[in-house]
Amino acid sequence: MNPSIHPDAEWRLHPRLTADSVPILNRDGIQYRLIDDHRFPWLLVVPMLAGAEQLHDLPSAWRDQSMRALQAASRTLEALYVPHRINIGAIGNLVPQLHLHCVARFHDDAAWPGVVWGAGTRTPMAPLTRLARVQAIGAGLVERLATNSTS
Amino acid sequence: MNPSIHPDAEWRLHPRLTADSVPILNRDGIQYRLIDDHRFPWLLVVPMLAGAEQLHDLPSAWRDQSMRALQAASRTLEALYVPHRINIGAIGNLVPQLHLHCVARFHDDAAWPGVVWGAGTRTPMAPLTRLARVQAIGAGLVERLATNSTS
Repeated sequence: MNPSIHPDAEWRLHPRLTADSVPILNRDGIQYRLIDDHRFPWLLVVPMLAGAEQLHDLPSAWRDQSMRALQAASRTLEALYVPHRINIGAIGNLVPQLHLHCVARFHDDAAWPGVVWGAGTRTPMAPLTRLARVQAIGAGLVERLATNSTS
Repeated sequence: MNPSIHPDAEWRLHPRLTADSVPILNRDGIQYRLIDDHRFPWLLVVPMLAGAEQLHDLPSAWRDQSMRALQAASRTLEALYVPHRINIGAIGNLVPQLHLHCVARFHDDAAWPGVVWGAGTRTPMAPLTRLARVQAIGAGLVERLATNSTS
């Protein structure tokens, strides 16, 4: 990660993302969040840059940082959950604020082989399950972000 | 783009991608394709690297190249179609070969605000429409790839 990237003081999380997910970690200008859905291990990678909406419009340093963050998120989910596939998405049709989805997918999950976006109804986790998941993913992210995640 | 990235001689396009899309351009190790669906301006960015399956497993030079290609694809669709949003996806639940989706989305398109993956049935274009679209997008890509698309 590039440690010279800092959160933008004017950045605020979109209320819909606040409602659907919980924070895991802020690091080097990126907020990592867990979607509160028991059905899927599902992370959001959110660049803390006010006004950012689309990946191709990001300043290059922020774009590179977001890609490194996405890689750390993918590797963390892979190590913890051993999924069949990682699904990545940058969609934003409902929430224009830039946020990248990173989802661990399994052959027997609730949406396979379809995508998670628009699939059924979000099922919140029990509080202890959510806490355990946040702690495990947070520890995994910290470990991966401490190494050079660009290689 | 990094001109030192070359297609892998052993790379072959997955048959399902061959069936659903047409080639636009090969450039610097990336194949750009158009999904043959009249409903959406929808590109595929395919790194021509044999065995590549997931973004986070790509060698870093290929990952960076794929991101630059995705940016050129997004900007080309934006310039030609003036969409409300660009949707990006790396999914691969049905086709494991790595391919990145880049789709121009509109408030009145056939799937809005949902995603295009799994939405209804692909509607092939009339041959002249397809040809015109491939030519316009190809010209747009060539123009953007000629400049430094990392900025």
